Amino acid sequence: MSDFDYTPSESEALLLNYGQMESPASTSYNSRGGANGRASSNRRVSSDEELLDTMIVGGNLERSTGFANKELDPRLHGSSSLMDTLDDLPPGIGQYEDFHTIDWLRDVARDRMRHRQVVKKKQDGCLEYLKGAHDAWSGWMCVLLVGVAAGALAGVIDIGASWLSDIKEGICRDAFWLNKEQCCWSANDTTLDEERCSQWYSWAEMVGMKSSGGGSYIVRYFFYITWGCLFALTAAMFVRVFAPYACGSGIPEIKTILSGFIIRGYLGKWTLLTKSVGMMLSVAAGLSLGKEGPYVHVACCCGNIFSYLFPKYGSNEAKKREVLSAASAAGVSVAFGAPIGGVLFSLEEVSYYFPLKTLWRSFFCALAAAFVLRSINPFGNDHLVMFYIEYNEPWYLQELVPFILIGALGGLYGSLFIKLNIKWCQYRKNSVLGKYPIIEVLVVAFITTLLSFPNPYTRMNTSEMIRQLVSRCGPEDTNDLCDYQRNFSDPKSYMSSTYAGGGVKRAIWQLVLALIFKGIITVFTFGMKVPSGLFIPSMAVGAIMGRLIGIGMEQLVIANRYSPLFKNMCQSDCAITPGLYAMVGAAAALGGVTRMTVSLVVIMFELTGGLQYIVPLMLATMASKWVGDALGKQGIYDAHIRLNGYPYLDNKEEFTHTTIAADVMRPRRNDPPLCVITQESMSLEEIETLLKETEHNGFPVVVSVDSQYLVGFVTRRDLQLAIANARKNVEGVVSDSIVYFSNQIPSNTVGPAPLKLRKILDLAPVTITDQTPMETVVEMFRKLGLRQTLVTVNGRLLGIITKKDVLRHIIQLQNQDPDSILFN
Amino acid sequence: MSDFDYTPSESEALLLNYGQMESPASTSYNSRGGANGRASSNRRVSSDEELLDTMIVGGNLERSTGFANKELDPRLHGSSSLMDTLDDLPPGIGQYEDFHTIDWLRDVARDRMRHRQVVKKKQDGCLEYLKGAHDAWSGWMCVLLVGVAAGALAGVIDIGASWLSDIKEGICRDAFWLNKEQCCWSANDTTLDEERCSQWYSWAEMVGMKSSGGGSYIVRYFFYITWGCLFALTAAMFVRVFAPYACGSGIPEIKTILSGFIIRGYLGKWTLLTKSVGMMLSVAAGLSLGKEGPYVHVACCCGNIFSYLFPKYGSNEAKKREVLSAASAAGVSVAFGAPIGGVLFSLEEVSYYFPLKTLWRSFFCALAAAFVLRSINPFGNDHLVMFYIEYNEPWYLQELVPFILIGALGGLYGSLFIKLNIKWCQYRKNSVLGKYPIIEVLVVAFITTLLSFPNPYTRMNTSEMIRQLVSRCGPEDTNDLCDYQRNFSDPKSYMSSTYAGGGVKRAIWQLVLALIFKGIITVFTFGMKVPSGLFIPSMAVGAIMGRLIGIGMEQLVIANRYSPLFKNMCQSDCAITPGLYAMVGAAAALGGVTRMTVSLVVIMFELTGGLQYIVPLMLATMASKWVGDALGKQGIYDAHIRLNGYPYLDNKEEFTHTTIAADVMRPRRNDPPLCVITQESMSLEEIETLLKETEHNGFPVVVSVDSQYLVGFVTRRDLQLAIANARKNVEGVVSDSIVYFSNQIPSNTVGPAPLKLRKILDLAPVTITDQTPMETVVEMFRKLGLRQTLVTVNGRLLGIITKKDVLRHIIQLQNQDPDSILFN
Repeated sequence: MSDFDYTPSESEALLLNYGQMESPASTSYNSRGGANGRASSNRRVSSDEELLDTMIVGGNLERSTGFANKELDPRLHGSSSLMDTLDDLPPGIGQYEDFHTIDWLRDVARDRMRHRQVVKKKQDGCLEYLKGAHDAWSGWMCVLLVGVAAGALAGVIDIGASWLSDIKEGICRDAFWLNKEQCCWSANDTTLDEERCSQWYSWAEMVGMKSSGGGSYIVRYFFYITWGCLFALTAAMFVRVFAPYACGSGIPEIKTILSGFIIRGYLGKWTLLTKSVGMMLSVAAGLSLGKEGPYVHVACCCGNIFSYLFPKYGSNEAKKREVLSAASAAGVSVAFGAPIGGVLFSLEEVSYYFPLKTLWRSFFCALAAAFVLRSINPFGNDHLVMFYIEYNEPWYLQELVPFILIGALGGLYGSLFIKLNIKWCQYRKNSVLGKYPIIEVLVVAFITTLLSFPNPYTRMNTSEMIRQLVSRCGPEDTNDLCDYQRNFSDPKSYMSSTYAGGGVKRAIWQLVLALIFKGIITVFTFGMKVPSGLFIPSMAVGAIMGRLIGIGMEQLVIANRYSPLFKNMCQSDCAITPGLYAMVGAAAALGGVTRMTVSLVVIMFELTGGLQYIVPLMLATMASKWVGDALGKQGIYDAHIRLNGYPYLDNKEEFTHTTIAADVMRPRRNDPPLCVITQESMSLEEIETLLKETEHNGFPVVVSVDSQYLVGFVTRRDLQLAIANARKNVEGVVSDSIVYFSNQIPSNTVGPAPLKLRKILDLAPVTITDQTPMETVVEMFRKLGLRQTLVTVNGRLLGIITKKDVLRHIIQLQNQDPDSILFN
Repeated sequence: MSDFDYTPSESEALLLNYGQMESPASTSYNSRGGANGRASSNRRVSSDEELLDTMIVGGNLERSTGFANKELDPRLHGSSSLMDTLDDLPPGIGQYEDFHTIDWLRDVARDRMRHRQVVKKKQDGCLEYLKGAHDAWSGWMCVLLVGVAAGALAGVIDIGASWLSDIKEGICRDAFWLNKEQCCWSANDTTLDEERCSQWYSWAEMVGMKSSGGGSYIVRYFFYITWGCLFALTAAMFVRVFAPYACGSGIPEIKTILSGFIIRGYLGKWTLLTKSVGMMLSVAAGLSLGKEGPYVHVACCCGNIFSYLFPKYGSNEAKKREVLSAASAAGVSVAFGAPIGGVLFSLEEVSYYFPLKTLWRSFFCALAAAFVLRSINPFGNDHLVMFYIEYNEPWYLQELVPFILIGALGGLYGSLFIKLNIKWCQYRKNSVLGKYPIIEVLVVAFITTLLSFPNPYTRMNTSEMIRQLVSRCGPEDTNDLCDYQRNFSDPKSYMSSTYAGGGVKRAIWQLVLALIFKGIITVFTFGMKVPSGLFIPSMAVGAIMGRLIGIGMEQLVIANRYSPLFKNMCQSDCAITPGLYAMVGAAAALGGVTRMTVSLVVIMFELTGGLQYIVPLMLATMASKWVGDALGKQGIYDAHIRLNGYPYLDNKEEFTHTTIAADVMRPRRNDPPLCVITQESMSLEEIETLLKETEHNGFPVVVSVDSQYLVGFVTRRDLQLAIANARKNVEGVVSDSIVYFSNQIPSNTVGPAPLKLRKILDLAPVTITDQTPMETVVEMFRKLGLRQTLVTVNGRLLGIITKKDVLRHIIQLQNQDPDSILFN
């Protein structure tokens, strides 16, 4: 027979595997879970409220008495008459422990109960009315604050990362706090040469050498590597010392949390600070990672922290997840300047329970964040992302062939990346390597910077590289990619394609090398113990690939401009935009890695700002998704969820097997019978023994052991609290006291005072019959957010199915070893 | 005690109230339900498949025997061993009757069963493999076809409506099939005057009068009214004769259908044809209605019709709704050229069950539709809508005040409109007016055209008016709205605001009159028996209001340009765009009427094509929604659903009351006990009597009448079919035969041969306890798509709650008379 949920002993394994040398349950995690501590103090304060909340769990019976007459009169639906009877319930009932699954149904019900309270009290006076208004506002207020905070933080991180990145190459002598661009602005140079300005000194110049030449190159190379390693080391130390949860992208964990799991401290203030600083450092180090994914984590931390300002959200895990959904939309919104894409990302990729009200609030939150970030204007170009572009060039039907090819290649790359990355992460976990996370970061940083510097495309900021790749060549562009054989005096010639010059050929080789390098190093980078996102590296790989194919296509068409195949593309001049291919490639690779669909297309649409490219983007994304899915169903986030053994019940994958509830439920055929509590025959001592000897998180209550007719369900936590409270506060309760869960207690009892616990009994547990197909059961778990369901046949209790049983069953059916995978 | 679902007698009331003079159940409806007839023939053919499908209902027990051993081996999960045992099931089991609620859980399970079949057969050979591939493709294929058809139809309707509209004013003499714009193009006039071209003859010119002057005006007036009334009459006749379901916007009914209700013929081919032609006519008649809403209905008809090409969708009501969701996205996509907005509209407003796979397919469908429509290019401007605009003007923070004001006014207008329109519709229903729908249309058309002609803003096409209102004034615009005191030689002066000229003042008066007229006439128009959408009239009212406020704001700022309040708006010249105010106003009014949120903002965003206006649009929409909700919770579609008494369980409104299942379930306290069937003691005759004497749609099966322990649930339809089949085909079955629903049949039976019906028994009915809070029950009904749930206490059957009981309960709690509202 199984325990009903994650018991502490198993929960250890669920901690993020930050090295193996720390005891995962050590207090160092807890003491730093900033918002967590705050939460619990908050909880003490609002314990009154919680007493009322628990009515849902236990107050049903009282309500039903004589209720049938009231039902037609909504004015009587307040439940004031019941409130006073519940004062004897101990505080803390209805909360969750760390690494436990939440019960959505119950939490949502608790919130409605609280809401009714507020509405009822509203008539009691002006102050209460204001409180009611505050309660009604608080949802919008909360997401507004979250949006503003996420936008502001993103601005700070953008500016900080850009400054630190430039520090690798040089410094602004008179104002060291400026990055290269700002430095050159402030210097007011008249020269248009972007590469140098009077105020900006490379490190070679700072140590007194000339700005060019072999010696200078070596000094700059040396400083590039030194700074890179230093930044990476600092980031890794930060994560190590202050908040181990700040590593990685955070999206797999946020998906798990939003699906109804508790990981205390994961969204706390220490994590937020560490992640923010660590992101700047690790991006500046030049590692092959991005800050776009971690923005989601940062925004969710803001969401969690601000939710404690509003008890409605802070003290209700289900409601808090609404704020977190909105926050993750804000995270993507600031990452790509795409509020609609952010909302769809939240809907499609991260969120689990997403009612329409949340959709609207998420949109508001995402918009507020984008608005604040635009006001900060970190890139000085009025756009929220470095690689925002506005195209006008048309595309032709023939081009769909290379677009779909790019999509397929993107899907191929994505699944290859996922497989290799997961293999490497598994190796890291199981080998000695996992014990030296900081050395690993240092080594990868050294290799990355060593190999990056010689190639201009890898040396520059990855966002900047993507910007160059997706841009079209205008008259003002002087980089290699735009070195075509053009008539430079005629600005019109930039509107059409022409033969490539020497610069383009050089760029092609550099891009091929960059593609190989980025493709390989990212596998080793993602999963290290520094904050690291995957969006930008994936897009970079895709953009390089796309640009290369685009240039190839361009030259092909020009060479065959009179062929009937390309005739319509070359009326007077051929018009092919390799930048568009890069854009499509970025979408394809990102789609292959993350398996996003609608949200990806919408994000790219918001980036390009034109409806006309939506068809190429969509087709490439579809091709990428199909090819990727054919090679392996899981996206990178799902793969990491599986790797880390989080209890995540995927709501996208369909359950297609024909098993029934009887196959899954515990106890199994030859197991000992289910641990049950009878409603009016067990003594306090017997129940205490049961609690001691088992680790189940809850017990069904039945009429009698023989009949097994189900009465209700009581959770371990509530039972423990209620018993401890009764032992302390209720007179006459001793070990021999009979515990009554039934409604009527025989008045002629002899012996010690009975203990009445019907109030903590859930009289409405969700039940199914043993013949229920598992597909229905899985649907119920997903849609209703259950923790467990009881299995009956002809009214008799047969067994229980917990979320864990369902997860284990799904993994079993996938022919994998459940124990090694789910909880290692 | 209640029946379990809509029985025929009640279903009559649920028919669309097309006048009161027809018997709603008359066969004329059925004979014209084109796709319906096709559907049923299709069903006959695929009855084999259905036999397999029904396994889910009855095949559980067989599966469970000895299944526990198989569960670890997924290869054994095919269920071939059971197939052959089911041949004795009669055909037709598992279908629904008209005006019945579908059972989502069962339909989804049926589809999964079918899918497993296909996957299993795939290994049987090349042909089967191809069939399997076709099955996998069919979802995408189907939505592609739907998208293409919806786009093509929209193009045809756009062109047709535009031609017919112009016919009211004149004709292209040499090529009568051209509308005014095309006519003037083909004439190749050198003059730039838009108002006249050599080929286009007004009716006054056609009858031989001069093109201007009082006589000409009267002739044109006369023809305008005549054609308008003629078109309106034709549209009404079309609807009356061919497809009564083609009237109105269709969105309330589609919402109801998507929520799991069957209305046969509503999405049939006759409806499609009638609606398409009727739309052109009624729009061309100049009535205050739009074709954007009906596009959704047209697209859904396409979805329904094409789904029958793919049995996977055509023969499974739950799966078909996935196609319909995608189709409604395509409808909005072509209506506004907004594929993303369309998907969000489908998600937010119409769809009920919207898994992520559907989201992606809907997007594809919407994009395909938009792509086809763009290729058709009905307006000749490369955009999908007449009023597509591309702004670049900035907006200032101070302007948020008028924007929010516009939003609030929009909300006010919306709720006022809803209240008046519902009142008028109720009056129409209950008075003699409802008997003369055609005369009503004629009268309204006469009044509309009579009052429209004198005012240029009402005389022109409403879309064209909106286009003028939301545009900014450029050098080429010569209409009244752009008559400012400008320096005409300086093109730069068009970038800034300046004092209004006489034309603007004239336009203001005309717009005020147009606002009043449109506002009032739309109340009477929406709900008439012609195809009529509400998007365009609402947007028109909002756009007029917004433009008026915009002009006011503009003049206010110019007059106070040195005031500190407006200083930042007027650096050298003031820059205020009244067109933006009109856009915001259109969003606000549409939001007030429909209560859309995210989808509305996204649609407007796609219309304006700039992220920068999303903040004003969002704030106005929020203000509109809040003001509207404060005055009345329901949007126009929900109000019409309520008005028509459709069984729609709203998934947006939260259930906030404290009732429990025991308060809602039947039988009530003093009612006779629940009609049940015992599992092994009732004779065939007794069951037949039960079927005859009651009208319930299903019966719980219990162990015995005394114990009431629940075994399963059997639907009336399945029971009738099974009994009829047994009477005909099974030897030895007579009236005295005992009907066995149990697993084992005692071998020593005396008397006639027993009838074994366990196969049609649903062994996994959803059950709840009597103490379950109704909020949980409502959640279960919504999220799991239940038809009914059984109520138990301690394993004993107590009662039943159907969807109808839940709906009735919700209405009771809203203090309204359930019977008069739900089923009148």
